[in-house]
Amino acid sequence: MRGVLLTVTYDGEHFHGWAAQPGMRTVQGVLLHALTQLDPQVTSLRGTSRTDRGVHARGQKAAFDTTTEIPTRGWVLGVNQHLPDDVAIASASRIAPGYNPRFDAQKKRYEYRILRRTLRDPLRHKHTWRVAEPLALGTMESEARSLLGTHDFAAFSAARDARENTVRTLTQIALTPEGDELVVRVEGNAFLYNMVRILVGTLVDVGRGKLPQGTFERALLSKDRRDLGITAPAHGLTLDEITLSSAGLEPFPEML
Amino acid sequence: MRGVLLTVTYDGEHFHGWAAQPGMRTVQGVLLHALTQLDPQVTSLRGTSRTDRGVHARGQKAAFDTTTEIPTRGWVLGVNQHLPDDVAIASASRIAPGYNPRFDAQKKRYEYRILRRTLRDPLRHKHTWRVAEPLALGTMESEARSLLGTHDFAAFSAARDARENTVRTLTQIALTPEGDELVVRVEGNAFLYNMVRILVGTLVDVGRGKLPQGTFERALLSKDRRDLGITAPAHGLTLDEITLSSAGLEPFPEML
Repeated sequence: MRGVLLTVTYDGEHFHGWAAQPGMRTVQGVLLHALTQLDPQVTSLRGTSRTDRGVHARGQKAAFDTTTEIPTRGWVLGVNQHLPDDVAIASASRIAPGYNPRFDAQKKRYEYRILRRTLRDPLRHKHTWRVAEPLALGTMESEARSLLGTHDFAAFSAARDARENTVRTLTQIALTPEGDELVVRVEGNAFLYNMVRILVGTLVDVGRGKLPQGTFERALLSKDRRDLGITAPAHGLTLDEITLSSAGLEPFPEML
Repeated sequence: MRGVLLTVTYDGEHFHGWAAQPGMRTVQGVLLHALTQLDPQVTSLRGTSRTDRGVHARGQKAAFDTTTEIPTRGWVLGVNQHLPDDVAIASASRIAPGYNPRFDAQKKRYEYRILRRTLRDPLRHKHTWRVAEPLALGTMESEARSLLGTHDFAAFSAARDARENTVRTLTQIALTPEGDELVVRVEGNAFLYNMVRILVGTLVDVGRGKLPQGTFERALLSKDRRDLGITAPAHGLTLDEITLSSAGLEPFPEML
């Protein structure tokens, strides 16, 4: 048995998220079906992040096991032939069989695109969230800084099991203007359900004056979702990159 | 009676092109329906370029007549409320009633995006044409230059009336690398049906060595479509900007 680790890119618009669900078109479901075209015995695909319906990914990671001798390059080219236009395998590498990247993620980076325009732009509608009001960037930046470090992010989650550990570490929140877009890049060790979208929605609410400065600090103390702002829409969000610890990685047989 | 001139942006993916057709979702049809929500007496919308199925536009121009007193700003905000996400009015101005921008276009600019990658990128699939083979940019640039000026472009059209005048003037063909994309910008006084897509497809065929240098010159002489390369796919193409002569323009009443 061999393990194979894939890097997967997808446009989330027409998927009901990553996780397979009966009767729904999901990224995991579509990928698994394509994998079985090369090896009918592949029965499970272990993803790292369960992205929501509508969320995009540039660097999702997922692993599966196979008894075939197909080289990693063969998996990339072969499976892509069986995938629709809105999902593709960007790369593949060998990994220990049974490897689950979900328990091995050191760092994840998300990118959120805000379109600062009064009018809609149909050409960018599917990958940005349009905000018509003026945004106070300096205020947003100082508000963002207050979230860096290790905190209990209990307030930053839509729905969750009360027993779940909600302590997370954020290592970066960068706001970068690109033309009339504002790109928010968030990096951390792990994220709660909807955490990035609640973070960005609240940041925008602070930037347009709907919520006061200090909103993040108050919510970290109260642990109450109601102290935060709106949940930013899914289509502005992209899972950009996942860094795995190298524990499970095997060298490419091609390189030996 | 007053005339109103609109600048229209749309994502062509889910439209059967600009021109209204019975039973089809077209940009002209969807726009006209939205206009009648503000003025039920609007019966025709005169577009400048009949973009094909799948082609996008940033700066399509279209005019209509109305007896209402709605100011130009009101048309922009009001009609956008009745339009779906994939089409929007970017601006509006007053114009003489009966004005037809199709007969008043001085210059049109198209943008075509080529994605130079071995593997597909689902996040850019809808607005680029992926070309996996290496492209000789210098060769493409000198080939492009041979098309500048006034020529009989009869070979550069898919299907046409034999009596049609096929002489056109190209004022610019610029190839600009942007990351792993190559953007081809083509500017001219007017274009034949499919002309930009045949031009770009042939340019790529020359760049990847499927057709020899001098292909454009030969086709200008032979006037034979078969001397040119493939027709590049619609989804890489955007109608970027149309420049109208100012003959029909009236000053804004708001500015008097």
